[in-house]
Amino acid sequence: MESTENYLPSLITKTPLEGRELAVKLARKSIAAIQTDGEIRKKLRDQYANDTSQLIASAHVIATEFQTIAKANDYWKTMKGS
Amino acid sequence: MESTENYLPSLITKTPLEGRELAVKLARKSIAAIQTDGEIRKKLRDQYANDTSQLIASAHVIATEFQTIAKANDYWKTMKGS
Amino acid sequence: MESTENYLPSLITKTPLEGRELAVKLARKSIAAIQTDGEIRKKLRDQYANDTSQLIASAHVIATEFQTIAKANDYWKTMKGS
Amino acid sequence: MESTENYLPSLITKTPLEGRELAVKLARKSIAAIQTDGEIRKKLRDQYANDTSQLIASAHVIATEFQTIAKANDYWKTMKGS
Amino acid sequence: MESTENYLPSLITKTPLEGRELAVKLARKSIAAIQTDGEIRKKLRDQYANDTSQLIASAHVIATEFQTIAKANDYWKTMKGS
Amino acid sequence: MESTENYLPSLITKTPLEGRELAVKLARKSIAAIQTDGEIRKKLRDQYANDTSQLIASAHVIATEFQTIAKANDYWKTMKGS
Repeated sequence: MESTENYLPSLITKTPLEGRELAVKLARKSIAAIQTDGEIRKKLRDQYANDTSQLIASAHVIATEFQTIAKANDYWKTMKGS
Repeated sequence: MESTENYLPSLITKTPLEGRELAVKLARKSIAAIQTDGEIRKKLRDQYANDTSQLIASAHVIATEFQTIAKANDYWKTMKGS
Repeated sequence: MESTENYLPSLITKTPLEGRELAVKLARKSIAAIQTDGEIRKKLRDQYANDTSQLIASAHVIATEFQTIAKANDYWKTMKGS
Repeated sequence: MESTENYLPSLITKTPLEGRELAVKLARKSIAAIQTDGEIRKKLRDQYANDTSQLIASAHVIATEFQTIAKANDYWKTMKGS
Repeated sequence: MESTENYLPSLITKTPLEGRELAVKLARKSIAAIQTDGEIRKKLRDQYANDTSQLIASAHVIATEFQTIAKANDYWKTMKGS
Repeated sequence: MESTENYLPSLITKTPLEGRELAVKLARKSIAAIQTDGEIRKKLRDQYANDTSQLIASAHVIATEFQTIAKANDYWKTMKGS
């Protein structure tokens, strides 16, 4: 872990959309846990943002994180859907 | 997140087919969260739509998103099957 | 989505084997959702049917779809096993 | 599907080990559903059996199939463990 | 299956750590189910133990197997944590 | 297993953040179970920390491990969220 910032105080979010945003954040924090140099990460980011294989792989990670978050929030069932 | 549009007001869909469409949408929104330039995404799209490895990887992401959506909808069990 | 055909009226199938067939179908429909040109898909199909990496990746997608379908059918537990 | 043989009459197995064997079988049947020519599959088999990346990917598919089978059998909890 | 040895009499383990060890074992047995020649496996092992992509892929398989084992053991909740 | 150290006395953690840290640890221990030479692992680490594909793949493993840990902790629902 690169810092002591608590980036995950809870898995509970108000809305499904916030759950998606949390999923993206968790995926990014995992990468930061391995590549701890923020400057290097910024350079690497250009690489995967332009490589479709890596974009798809990133989307897979987000989907996996979202499974956990959605379950934690009981799929936001008590909200009114659109 | 590239915009404040709420693309996911709810995980609940009327039918399994709409659940599939939502799964495809979520996968696309994940990619848009990383590659925020819509013009670049359009160009990249031609690449993965013609590369079988990437098509299969995309199908895997959709399958993962659909697991979450199907669970949220209790597998649409209260609907009449065909 | 390339057409309005309802390829998924329900996740419920009579037998586990039909569940497998539905899993294969869902995987194919995901690919069709991205590569909407049927002629191109037919050509691409020859590629992945002869590439073991891609066959294995396809099997992974089918396994993931089947998890959802099997759960929806409560694992067909009320059927008599062989 | 290459034949009408019912290779999956049930997800229920007597033992965890038989569950593993069924997981391997399901993975193979998925590949056969895509590459329907048995002769070609036999040739392809030599390829992936000697390529560690593909062996690991195959093991991942088996692990995914086994998750479903183990759940269907309630993890064989009513059996006596060793 | 290369032998009739029952390598999986049960999914139940005494501790989480033994659960991890079982996950590693299951991943290895899957590979052995496909590449049945032990001599070839030994040679292949040197390859993936020095290739980070394959090490990460192996870790993914172990994580997937562990999900099943942890669930089977109800996450060892009745044990006292450290 | 390279040592008899008990790196996983329990899946229970006090907070979601500690759950993330445990997920990272489990992923690392899986790699150590296969590549048992710590010196080699240190060299390999430089490789994957600078390769975006491998960083994303590592994030996927962490996400998978976290699913198990989050479930074991009932998603830390009894904690107060932020």
